[in-house]
Amino acid sequence: MSKGKVLLVLYKGGEHAKQESKLLGSLENELGIRKFVEDNGYELVSTDDKDPEGSSQVDKELADAEIIITTPFFPAYITRERIAKAPKLKMCITAGVGSDHIDLNAANERKISVIEVTGSNVQSVAEHVIMTMLVLVRNFTAAHQQAIDGSWDIAGIAKDSYDMEGKVFSTIGAGRIGYRVLERLIAFNPKKLLYYDYQELPKDAVDRLKQVSKIFNDNDLEIERVVSLEEMVAASDVVTVNCPLHEKSKGLVNKQLLSHFKDGAWLVNTARGAICVAEDVAEAVENGKLRGYGGDVWYPQPAPKDHPWRSFRNKYGAGNAMTPHVSGTSLDAQARYAAGVKNILESYYTGKHDYRPQDVIVINGDYATKAYGERKK
Amino acid sequence: MSKGKVLLVLYKGGEHAKQESKLLGSLENELGIRKFVEDNGYELVSTDDKDPEGSSQVDKELADAEIIITTPFFPAYITRERIAKAPKLKMCITAGVGSDHIDLNAANERKISVIEVTGSNVQSVAEHVIMTMLVLVRNFTAAHQQAIDGSWDIAGIAKDSYDMEGKVFSTIGAGRIGYRVLERLIAFNPKKLLYYDYQELPKDAVDRLKQVSKIFNDNDLEIERVVSLEEMVAASDVVTVNCPLHEKSKGLVNKQLLSHFKDGAWLVNTARGAICVAEDVAEAVENGKLRGYGGDVWYPQPAPKDHPWRSFRNKYGAGNAMTPHVSGTSLDAQARYAAGVKNILESYYTGKHDYRPQDVIVINGDYATKAYGERKK
Ligand SMILES: NC(=O)c1ccc[n+]([C@@H]2O[C@H](COP(=O)([O-])OP(=O)(O)OC[C@H]3O[C@@H](n4cnc5c(N)ncnc54)[C@H](O)[C@@H]3O)[C@@H](O)[C@H]2O)c1
Ligand SMILES: NC(=O)c1ccc[n+]([C@@H]2O[C@H](COP(=O)([O-])OP(=O)(O)OC[C@H]3O[C@@H](n4cnc5c(N)ncnc54)[C@H](O)[C@@H]3O)[C@@H](O)[C@H]2O)c1
Repeated sequence: MSKGKVLLVLYKGGEHAKQESKLLGSLENELGIRKFVEDNGYELVSTDDKDPEGSSQVDKELADAEIIITTPFFPAYITRERIAKAPKLKMCITAGVGSDHIDLNAANERKISVIEVTGSNVQSVAEHVIMTMLVLVRNFTAAHQQAIDGSWDIAGIAKDSYDMEGKVFSTIGAGRIGYRVLERLIAFNPKKLLYYDYQELPKDAVDRLKQVSKIFNDNDLEIERVVSLEEMVAASDVVTVNCPLHEKSKGLVNKQLLSHFKDGAWLVNTARGAICVAEDVAEAVENGKLRGYGGDVWYPQPAPKDHPWRSFRNKYGAGNAMTPHVSGTSLDAQARYAAGVKNILESYYTGKHDYRPQDVIVINGDYATKAYGERKK
Repeated sequence: MSKGKVLLVLYKGGEHAKQESKLLGSLENELGIRKFVEDNGYELVSTDDKDPEGSSQVDKELADAEIIITTPFFPAYITRERIAKAPKLKMCITAGVGSDHIDLNAANERKISVIEVTGSNVQSVAEHVIMTMLVLVRNFTAAHQQAIDGSWDIAGIAKDSYDMEGKVFSTIGAGRIGYRVLERLIAFNPKKLLYYDYQELPKDAVDRLKQVSKIFNDNDLEIERVVSLEEMVAASDVVTVNCPLHEKSKGLVNKQLLSHFKDGAWLVNTARGAICVAEDVAEAVENGKLRGYGGDVWYPQPAPKDHPWRSFRNKYGAGNAMTPHVSGTSLDAQARYAAGVKNILESYYTGKHDYRPQDVIVINGDYATKAYGERKK
């Protein structure tokens, strides 16, 4: 008899998992934790059958699972309804960063802990943000298309290609990822860096950015916290979204906010799809308000074939730099979040519950982090 | 009667030039210099008819031209033969950086000056280098393809997606662009930075990189000048080429050098196509020696439809991050090199010939720069 059931939901690897054994985050490789879980007397059930809610394998297995492990890349949405049908559930682990696919308030009501591997892929995502900015600002996709399809019409690319240098960048959310984006931007010699967050960056973090700008660009870079989101986007050439998804950030980037953007700005979102209103963003690129949009988060995931973010283009037929949700699941990141999940399980199995404080999203019926919205305690 | 003829060779803008007036580098917009040239009593002839050598408009007009202005993006190759048939030619101006499309030794024999707009797009190219590294290392093209074609197979992307963090990067050539690439890499927290150049980086330039790594990554980053190119590539995850094309660098990256690369390394070349042997590089990606190759320089330009760099792919069907030659012709760069060309002409027209020293490639029958190969004087 096992002590309890661990349910693991991962994307299918198929042929790919056979080709690459480092693909730990795939269904076949199970984060490399099977033996560890079984050695601890638990049963491990893995599946990628998560949809539709109500009749999937996940629904069936949740009925008697004690722990569920999911990823943001291929999320099993742990809704209030699913939680209600999972009487034994004690812990939800996110193999990655961002636990918005779990109804955190419903988890709190049931005193289910939600623990994630904070920081495990923040460098990966910051890299993806910088890449996406470069791809959009420099017009890479149109250029690459010509290279591979046999054409050579430089003017057709150059007419919509700019430098990052000298632009104003801003981030909505300046936590682990947002700050890393700012770090990576300095050497590009930006005109100004702005951020919007209800938590202020520590003074020494801002000082580090300024010091580096002094060293590389020989200037006193303006790095400013802006309290009005409308004012910030109105002043920015490139805006990036790096805050968690919660009640207050859902639909934050909508038609109304977009109307305040500079004409021809670029928008990058690797945080969560639902922070942007999909149709509004697609329309903004189509009608020229935005020059382009890119990122790798969608709602729902997998995104349907007719999701508007697959088909939008700017007036020149470019300006789309979307990827499926992969920024945080590079092979390097998989090694880190797989190790992190093991540590969390270990902490649970020993009964110590000595999780790394930064990993704890909700516990004992309350939020343990300030990142998921300002709350009165 | 005009004082002399200025021949200007630019890529065609067509519809694009009508859509975007900032497209100064196009045939239609003539770098914005027509009035200036004519006000100085010179005739301006513009064309994009440069091929084939011998029978093009360029050949015809060169017969009595005093100055020719060309770009590296759409180069009129100014060969020994063409120089021989241009008895009045006194100056070749490169609207951009890199004058290898001119036979510099032949120019010296005739005491024709070759002047370029040094530095005018080095930030643009450094950005393109970082973008191309990110695109290759993170496997962007495969991911973007899925996003737009309606699929969602994360494992198929992730199996070949890595982080830049913790990798060893090296540059062949550490001049203006190479150094800017190193600057932009530091915040990505590399394992090590290496360079190969017969000119050593100034100590304070290296110190700046180290200081920033200390501030951002809290480490003492190893930044090393390597004297053996074979040893350097053997130690590198990502290699980038940032030296001019000249007798010694032509074909430098060939089968023999590629055999010394780490298996699965990435190669980025925005310097000049002919520094790499096209077939050898394509084959290295096809056979898995390289995980990917990218950049935006080709030989010849425009590249023929069947150039091997259009069609190579790695075993997973990705690993190609080529663009046509656009990195240095962003709209921001066009404004800078157009202004630079005007300054050079002004210096010529006044008879002062007080060019910015860094712009002068050859003059009075000799090389004025150390960048085009080590030469005994
Ligand atoms: N694409 C991916 O693979 C991937 C990977 C990791 C994280 N993420 C997403 O990125 C988010 C941020 O990650 P992190 O590690 O930087 O988190 P973090 O907790 O370190 O930082 C989040 C910051 O956002 C701020 N914030 C919260 N709500 C906000 C709002 N409405 N407006 C402005 N700021 C707000 C918080 O105060 C905090 O400073 C995650 O929650 C997740 O959704 C995506
Ligand atoms: N893709 C583009 O649009 C674009 C734009 C600008 C420049 N470029 C190319 O990049 C090259 C470099 O530009 P830059 O501004 O950095 O020039 P630079 O003169 O500032 O630096 C070139 C460096 O390369 C070194 N070098 C020369 N031959 C070498 C060799 N065989 N091996 C190693 N190092 C060698 C030189 O010593 C020098 O330090 C240009 O010559 C041009 O070909 C391309």
